[in-house]
Amino acid sequence: MGVTIRALEPADRRAVAAILMECEAFSLEETRVALEMIDAGLADGPEHGYALFVAETNKTVAGYVCIGRTPLTISTWHLYWIGVHPRAQRLGVGRALQTYIEDYIRGRQGTRVVVETSGRPDYEGSRRFYAAIGYQLAGRIADYYKPGDDCVFYYKVLS
Amino acid sequence: MGVTIRALEPADRRAVAAILMECEAFSLEETRVALEMIDAGLADGPEHGYALFVAETNKTVAGYVCIGRTPLTISTWHLYWIGVHPRAQRLGVGRALQTYIEDYIRGRQGTRVVVETSGRPDYEGSRRFYAAIGYQLAGRIADYYKPGDDCVFYYKVLS
Repeated sequence: MGVTIRALEPADRRAVAAILMECEAFSLEETRVALEMIDAGLADGPEHGYALFVAETNKTVAGYVCIGRTPLTISTWHLYWIGVHPRAQRLGVGRALQTYIEDYIRGRQGTRVVVETSGRPDYEGSRRFYAAIGYQLAGRIADYYKPGDDCVFYYKVLS
Repeated sequence: MGVTIRALEPADRRAVAAILMECEAFSLEETRVALEMIDAGLADGPEHGYALFVAETNKTVAGYVCIGRTPLTISTWHLYWIGVHPRAQRLGVGRALQTYIEDYIRGRQGTRVVVETSGRPDYEGSRRFYAAIGYQLAGRIADYYKPGDDCVFYYKVLS
């Protein structure tokens, strides 16, 4: 089954909201902020705000990603949100989104991608994913999100 | 000479702009963003955006600080900007601002402060300052701001 990546459109908002709510990685508050960033990205356009992409499998939206230039840096980007619907996990959707955004960022003279994720046990799959696709561990802040929920920073240098 | 800390007021904007431009730590772009955050903080109020304070020595504004709650965290705050005028450095202005914001954050059930600073040699004084007042090194991202200019993360747990 192939994975197709394309720019997120306003009509995708409902499918992406379902991904955010059903993939069990995000709290209600995180889902609210992720949706606000989609609205801001759609309003401002990818060159002035967030760049948003969806992954389709079988003509259905199965994942999405939100990235943006890191303020006050020359060529660093942040991967703000990435989510894959539970029924589409382990099909290479996350990898396809990652490969796409790396090409996108390289094409805009970007040299590195930073991601902040949780240190909780239920995020171990996410952390392994970042390590597997070439992200380096940059640091950790204990109890950052809440007690028992560290922030773990990774970054990937784009060759 | 005593240091007095108080909330930043609109009339302080010019003095703070002078600090940002004359303390030699900040680029023009950084100064622009720091001033935007002052305007946003004044517009939104400290409970809904950035909290801003100035330090006075001899009834003159000698330093300022900008902090805010870290989105999507329960009790983490960010120290976004801190600047001391060159003629007021080594007089305890930075420490007085730090002590003030730590009390302010504790008073709002905050438990930790995160700061991102530069790894450049000319920031060594800043990094030593953070270490001296109890910040822990959390990590580093090479060439984050630009080639040769790493980002260094510190955080302090408020007891």
